[in-house]
Amino acid sequence: MTIRDHASHASHASHADHADHLDSVSLDAIDRYWRAANYLAAGQIYLRDNALLHRTLEPSDIKPRLLGHWGTSPGLNFVHAHLNRLIKEHELDLITVLGPGHGGPAALACSWLDGTYTDHYPDVTRDEAGMNKLFAAFSAPGGVPSHIAANVPGSIHEGGELGYSLAHAFGAAFDNPDLIVACVVGDGEAETGPLATSWQSVRFLNPARDGAVLPILHLNGYKIANPTVLDRIPREQLDGLLASQGWDPRWVFGDDPHAMHHKMAEAMDSALATIRRIQNVKRNPKAADNGVPPWPVIILHTPKGWTGPRTVDGVQIEGTFRSHQVPLTGVRENPQHRHMLADWMKSYQPGELFDHFGRPKPEILACVPDRDQRIGANRHANGGVLTRTLDLPPIDAYAVPVAKPGETEHEPTRVLGTWLRDIIAADAPHGTFRLFGPDETASNHLDDVFDVTNRVWTLPTKATDDHLAPDGRVMEVLSEHLCQGWLEGYLLTGRHGLFSCYEAFIHIVDSMLNQHVKWLKTARALPWRAPVPSLNYLLTSHVWRQDHNGFSHQDPGFLDHVANKTADVVRLYLPPDANTLLFVAEHCLNSRDLVNVIVAGKNPSPDWLSPEDAALHCARGLGIWDWAGTEDEFASEPDVVLACAGDVPTLEVLAASQLLREHLPGLRIRVVNVVDLMRLQPESEHPHGLPDTQFDAIFTVDQPVIFAFHGYPSLVHRLTYRRHGHANLHVRGYKEQGTTTTPFDMLVRNDMDRFKLVCDVIDRVPGLAPRAAAVRQAMADARTRHQGWIVEHGEDLPEIREWKWTS
Amino acid sequence: MTIRDHASHASHASHADHADHLDSVSLDAIDRYWRAANYLAAGQIYLRDNALLHRTLEPSDIKPRLLGHWGTSPGLNFVHAHLNRLIKEHELDLITVLGPGHGGPAALACSWLDGTYTDHYPDVTRDEAGMNKLFAAFSAPGGVPSHIAANVPGSIHEGGELGYSLAHAFGAAFDNPDLIVACVVGDGEAETGPLATSWQSVRFLNPARDGAVLPILHLNGYKIANPTVLDRIPREQLDGLLASQGWDPRWVFGDDPHAMHHKMAEAMDSALATIRRIQNVKRNPKAADNGVPPWPVIILHTPKGWTGPRTVDGVQIEGTFRSHQVPLTGVRENPQHRHMLADWMKSYQPGELFDHFGRPKPEILACVPDRDQRIGANRHANGGVLTRTLDLPPIDAYAVPVAKPGETEHEPTRVLGTWLRDIIAADAPHGTFRLFGPDETASNHLDDVFDVTNRVWTLPTKATDDHLAPDGRVMEVLSEHLCQGWLEGYLLTGRHGLFSCYEAFIHIVDSMLNQHVKWLKTARALPWRAPVPSLNYLLTSHVWRQDHNGFSHQDPGFLDHVANKTADVVRLYLPPDANTLLFVAEHCLNSRDLVNVIVAGKNPSPDWLSPEDAALHCARGLGIWDWAGTEDEFASEPDVVLACAGDVPTLEVLAASQLLREHLPGLRIRVVNVVDLMRLQPESEHPHGLPDTQFDAIFTVDQPVIFAFHGYPSLVHRLTYRRHGHANLHVRGYKEQGTTTTPFDMLVRNDMDRFKLVCDVIDRVPGLAPRAAAVRQAMADARTRHQGWIVEHGEDLPEIREWKWTS
Repeated sequence: MTIRDHASHASHASHADHADHLDSVSLDAIDRYWRAANYLAAGQIYLRDNALLHRTLEPSDIKPRLLGHWGTSPGLNFVHAHLNRLIKEHELDLITVLGPGHGGPAALACSWLDGTYTDHYPDVTRDEAGMNKLFAAFSAPGGVPSHIAANVPGSIHEGGELGYSLAHAFGAAFDNPDLIVACVVGDGEAETGPLATSWQSVRFLNPARDGAVLPILHLNGYKIANPTVLDRIPREQLDGLLASQGWDPRWVFGDDPHAMHHKMAEAMDSALATIRRIQNVKRNPKAADNGVPPWPVIILHTPKGWTGPRTVDGVQIEGTFRSHQVPLTGVRENPQHRHMLADWMKSYQPGELFDHFGRPKPEILACVPDRDQRIGANRHANGGVLTRTLDLPPIDAYAVPVAKPGETEHEPTRVLGTWLRDIIAADAPHGTFRLFGPDETASNHLDDVFDVTNRVWTLPTKATDDHLAPDGRVMEVLSEHLCQGWLEGYLLTGRHGLFSCYEAFIHIVDSMLNQHVKWLKTARALPWRAPVPSLNYLLTSHVWRQDHNGFSHQDPGFLDHVANKTADVVRLYLPPDANTLLFVAEHCLNSRDLVNVIVAGKNPSPDWLSPEDAALHCARGLGIWDWAGTEDEFASEPDVVLACAGDVPTLEVLAASQLLREHLPGLRIRVVNVVDLMRLQPESEHPHGLPDTQFDAIFTVDQPVIFAFHGYPSLVHRLTYRRHGHANLHVRGYKEQGTTTTPFDMLVRNDMDRFKLVCDVIDRVPGLAPRAAAVRQAMADARTRHQGWIVEHGEDLPEIREWKWTS
Repeated sequence: MTIRDHASHASHASHADHADHLDSVSLDAIDRYWRAANYLAAGQIYLRDNALLHRTLEPSDIKPRLLGHWGTSPGLNFVHAHLNRLIKEHELDLITVLGPGHGGPAALACSWLDGTYTDHYPDVTRDEAGMNKLFAAFSAPGGVPSHIAANVPGSIHEGGELGYSLAHAFGAAFDNPDLIVACVVGDGEAETGPLATSWQSVRFLNPARDGAVLPILHLNGYKIANPTVLDRIPREQLDGLLASQGWDPRWVFGDDPHAMHHKMAEAMDSALATIRRIQNVKRNPKAADNGVPPWPVIILHTPKGWTGPRTVDGVQIEGTFRSHQVPLTGVRENPQHRHMLADWMKSYQPGELFDHFGRPKPEILACVPDRDQRIGANRHANGGVLTRTLDLPPIDAYAVPVAKPGETEHEPTRVLGTWLRDIIAADAPHGTFRLFGPDETASNHLDDVFDVTNRVWTLPTKATDDHLAPDGRVMEVLSEHLCQGWLEGYLLTGRHGLFSCYEAFIHIVDSMLNQHVKWLKTARALPWRAPVPSLNYLLTSHVWRQDHNGFSHQDPGFLDHVANKTADVVRLYLPPDANTLLFVAEHCLNSRDLVNVIVAGKNPSPDWLSPEDAALHCARGLGIWDWAGTEDEFASEPDVVLACAGDVPTLEVLAASQLLREHLPGLRIRVVNVVDLMRLQPESEHPHGLPDTQFDAIFTVDQPVIFAFHGYPSLVHRLTYRRHGHANLHVRGYKEQGTTTTPFDMLVRNDMDRFKLVCDVIDRVPGLAPRAAAVRQAMADARTRHQGWIVEHGEDLPEIREWKWTS
């Protein structure tokens, strides 16, 4: 096997032309480290005992189910070994992001070797007993997952779904000028859309202020069953692909370990020198502003499953897709396979790597950096420990005065924008906050932030551009994937951010959200992981106000998607006006380890609550708006509850309440507004869940509740189905009736307009229908009149456009 | 304004070096067509009357709300005018895909000009009255959307979310050897992940068998508020980016219409010649297999909002992001703006374009192709008219014999694979079916298809590769976005397909699914759009069997996402075994205009139903499995209903039923299996909804129902919350308790294992708990025993692994 030949050669010769990069001592240490890591990776996939092979392998030593990915592991180990040398030699502050996240065996092996695994899991000692535990736990019930996840020290990247490594790496590098993020990109992953567009991230990295990302594109040639595109295109095309996106590729190509060590060391030294040169030039205040030179990228070309079994039962394994998972599949039953496994593991010469007690020999650890510089111990990869609490300007100075509900109007997101502007200004000395969004900051009416900052842009500018600069704090690129990926990397390294997005298109990152929530759920259970700032979404340009864009831009389903996730992690907020938006945003920016979704409007809409009332209402999460119903007129239960969640539904419910007071005086109406949607769930289901007694007191247990909801009605049913009064709940919301039309017509099409809500009340309050027949007819007539009016006039009825709340 | 200068020059001079491409007659026709289309585009954005400006523009002529996108429209019109010339001159079969789908004004203008709009909407005549209607309806209530959607003749691309144009274009070109798909890619769109990875589609296009895609990358420099990355990188980098991905760029750069017409004609002629050359070479049976030469791509660089207002109120509009939507915003109130609008529209010299009655002059129509060759009339863009019904081999020959339920086991997807293999074989002469998936066909156990076909691959191959060839019918690329986009394009042009995917990662295309469903909903309402084959998903490697992969690969929420969509369009199927999978798949492949989601297992699992029973069960969608309960022992209502949907839940419910029969003889158990999930909804909500009387007869109205469900439990509640017996429904399913573990441990962690189901029955059947206390304890003990066993042995209890149904 390859490794055996290599082991005997590794220490005694180094090519003259590589001599500057790797002396024979370093070469020997790196090679031993690599062999040790490979040994440990193979062991994890197969063994539950006999880790050091001190006795002949027996079936009982082998795991009953062989689950894990070998193919990528030796390459990841190779990178890790060389990065260790680089860190140690140059005293680097460096973390890794491993795109081939299924290479869990490699990440765990290296963490065990550098001691960081034992730091966090003291029972997994760095000796034979610990090695047996490491092996047995891997991908086993009650053990550790086969993918790299939050449990792996030094990781900030959920190793499940492919495509997000490079975006995460950039997120980590932003505002960390001294950090280098080495990012292994798999050649399979490179075919995904998110990864393909991530290369352009370098256009948004400011070398004067941000750290560096060193991508290592690992061409091992195969995916699960197919070759990879990048491995089969001509080499000059791959060079061209990277060069044309601002990168300067250097190849490390081969399968002979000895030669490869030298090539890798040379490539890494050269990459580091280039990084330093770019940074030095661009950090010189006198530097000419003549663009950013290309950044180094390493293309590492090795066989897949390198150093593993070359052929098994006559079929080639190493260098093919067949090494993707478990190269030898029959080791428990098949003595020959078991023998091959032993040969394979022994080919790494474990006697040279571990002492009799299974402890890594000092020669191996010679290339491991010290303490916090170890890849597994870098504090950026446990970002919570570095998190600085944001200086949030007091809300009071930004809240709008509200003497009487509904008297004035504001654009909620514009009011928020003034606060965000001052957050950015206050944060300027620290550089720990950024705003992310796909080209929509101004469109979403947050453009006051441009009073104090710019959009990040390192490419040339023109006079007709608006607020572009390399040192901006607003990240805009037309890729929701990049916004999300950058932000995740930024948060997981301990900084703060907000992602503002058109509501419909946030579905683009549904799957990324899944992975991030899984990360947070796992991380929260690990005492050594410090809480990180929450992932905050501001969804605006929402379903009800797509006047420009119509049906294709209408989808409120992200709320449903998020609501499926672990209750511990997710929060959904629907502030009804400007002041409530401010208090909700403040709460979210102060929170940790959560995903907060805020849906808010950007169009002028009435201010309902004074700052004091807004603060109280947001703290409670939901509440009775007594001024909006006829609450003061009755001591007993209301005849009907009008509930609302979301800015547009709130307006409609208030208009309906007003119509009811006018047309059906004496009807006892209660208006309930819900800001924190999770309050609707029982306590048993969600930490924010309202106790049943309180829920019942607010919504009643037997009176009809007409609920106007921002999203799909089923979400409210789903959150409340265990509530006593659930059978009385009638929910209106979006039901996929969309087109390009007026705001009020959207409501009519989806049966959530004020007239329909009044009809709902009449239909559902027992005994009301007979005496309210004329009112019901008037409401139906109003809807008909609306239909005719908008077709003729192209805008809503004046009585709708000019409607104002009167108490 | 630019256009005015141009109009006077256009017809009298043509550069000598362009003479071959455009004579003065053609130039004049193209330029007039372009000006006419620009006139019509501007008119749509602003006017509700006075379309020909026969009188002074009054405020009442102006729409009350100005909604639409001007910026991209002149560029789209320019492309359209030149494609017309190309089609006519070369008798091409050509369709367009317009990535900047918000350029509705352009698409509608061109469709009106070439007569196809009037063909489909006869009241919108090609004269002044029709022009007024065209203008008034645009982006107006009751009118047409501002984005390109199904209502636009000649379109196959929902113009909402950006990023999918090029993938759609390739889908349309596959298996259409004579078709050219001209695809305009916006430079904003080009920043998205899906578009970035779409360039590599050309690696999967077989020039011998497939048509051609001609991308026209429209660099107009700006998005909503930002410059575009591709516009600001050095020109040679953009060339390199395209060249390195298999493309041969040719630039059309400028703003002088006269020169630009010549450049565009030359670029198009040259592109067409290159396409023909590649096709001729690769279609020659004697052609050497030496790779595919680069395909032509046109880079069209024009000002944004070209020919529109140059400056407004002292601010530059043309050539900046400010022309993205409505360049003149105050035309209704501001007489000066209104005057500028009139000047702008008159700058196109409408008198040269339309006769007094508003009919396009013959000179304009001189460059419009005839009849079916018109872009708006091409039958490929109304794919249903070309759809050939698939020859589906009779299921009987593939169904597995089932003498007794549960006696034998099969891998359901493997059985399906044999049928798919023969579909592919039968379809070979027609080439109207493809299988799509991200590198997972074999992993999903569909690899029998490789007996008759290959994976599509045009790059070099190696001996270690498996079943790669340019003429394969399996499309594998590690991008769910590409799989989905290609398939959508393939379906909308009338062909058939199946997308097999890991269940968790199908969320990657959530947002694409939204857009496709919106398209189908709109298209179904248009009588002239023929139904197209349905979008069929096979989700396998599902949440319950991620033994290799763990938590990051566990998410059954796509079902929820799809269930939110228009009931007319979506269907969810959970076949419990191999035979039911076959019948469901047959139903889906025969259906039209739907989105069908099938969730099925790939692991060996019991065969429950004989082919005859499976056919009947699938036709009914759900039913009582009397053999699985104690149905024959009682005439009255059961004590409990055990319901299940999904392969794993079905197995658990049967195991629970068996435990109950054993431990609690006399308990009257009914087992209900649900294949077609939408049967659970009321008739009023979904076309497949079961009438209440039938639902009540099956599920009872007052007995407890324990429902084991494949996905999140809330989905079952949501579908059934209007049913009479809903309060008695207790649903078990996935609740985000995942990790890398054994199959049975996944069930235990999520409380859906047989032991827990038995406990649920005991807890919920009135009066049962006291006498079943010992049984309940035994079940709890079994769960504890399981926990200990798997930690010790790394696999499930033998009694679980070896469990078999006994009746």
